[in-house]
Amino acid sequence: MLIPIGVVRHDASDVPRHCSISELEGELVIDEAYRPGLDDLEPGQELVVLWQFHLSPPFTKEHLHQTPPNQDRPKGVFATCSPVRPNPIGLSVVEVLAVEDGVVRVRGLDMYDGTPILDLKPHKARSSG
Amino acid sequence: MLIPIGVVRHDASDVPRHCSISELEGELVIDEAYRPGLDDLEPGQELVVLWQFHLSPPFTKEHLHQTPPNQDRPKGVFATCSPVRPNPIGLSVVEVLAVEDGVVRVRGLDMYDGTPILDLKPHKARSSG
Repeated sequence: MLIPIGVVRHDASDVPRHCSISELEGELVIDEAYRPGLDDLEPGQELVVLWQFHLSPPFTKEHLHQTPPNQDRPKGVFATCSPVRPNPIGLSVVEVLAVEDGVVRVRGLDMYDGTPILDLKPHKARSSG
Repeated sequence: MLIPIGVVRHDASDVPRHCSISELEGELVIDEAYRPGLDDLEPGQELVVLWQFHLSPPFTKEHLHQTPPNQDRPKGVFATCSPVRPNPIGLSVVEVLAVEDGVVRVRGLDMYDGTPILDLKPHKARSSG
């Protein structure tokens, strides 16, 4: 079972297609019970945010192939970032700008205002080779 | 609710601490119902794997701070990769070696043999600046 630990807040009506091309700033507002877990997050670091595609319809076998925006043919769902997936979990990598009173201010959001947050993790790139 | 889409298979008894330092090879064996969704995955690409920390104890407030291996003091859980988290979801970035008959052969595993897989996504790095 998934338990939201907080919620995404920003005031943009239009959301970038993917965090890798987003400069959108906003807040990760963490529920009081989980706020002590934010200790040691630092401005400047990259943070993985796992969140819920809370507005997506249920996944059915018709969604096994989907045509991504700006592409001309259907692809296997696991080769896409579609919000309609067997487990509706989204992933964004954002930059931490500030942490204060249970609120993490970040840049790079690509989810809607009001999106439930599931987890935060330090981002570690895979060493090549 | 989380629905496993497959399972991790490898024959190592010792698992690297993190995918960023792992060269462990193995297989993502995807359930038949989800296999068509593997279309368009390509050898050489980096793949995000979301999976379940299926052996972790339930999260309690005592887990808000934890001392990571090789470190000397407790840190906020969201600044660590601990398997004991409010939502027990793990994340690994692996390299695809081959895709055949519903099995994705990969390098870079850091989860136990038998771990339930929740999602696969293309890996896109955040553009800097």
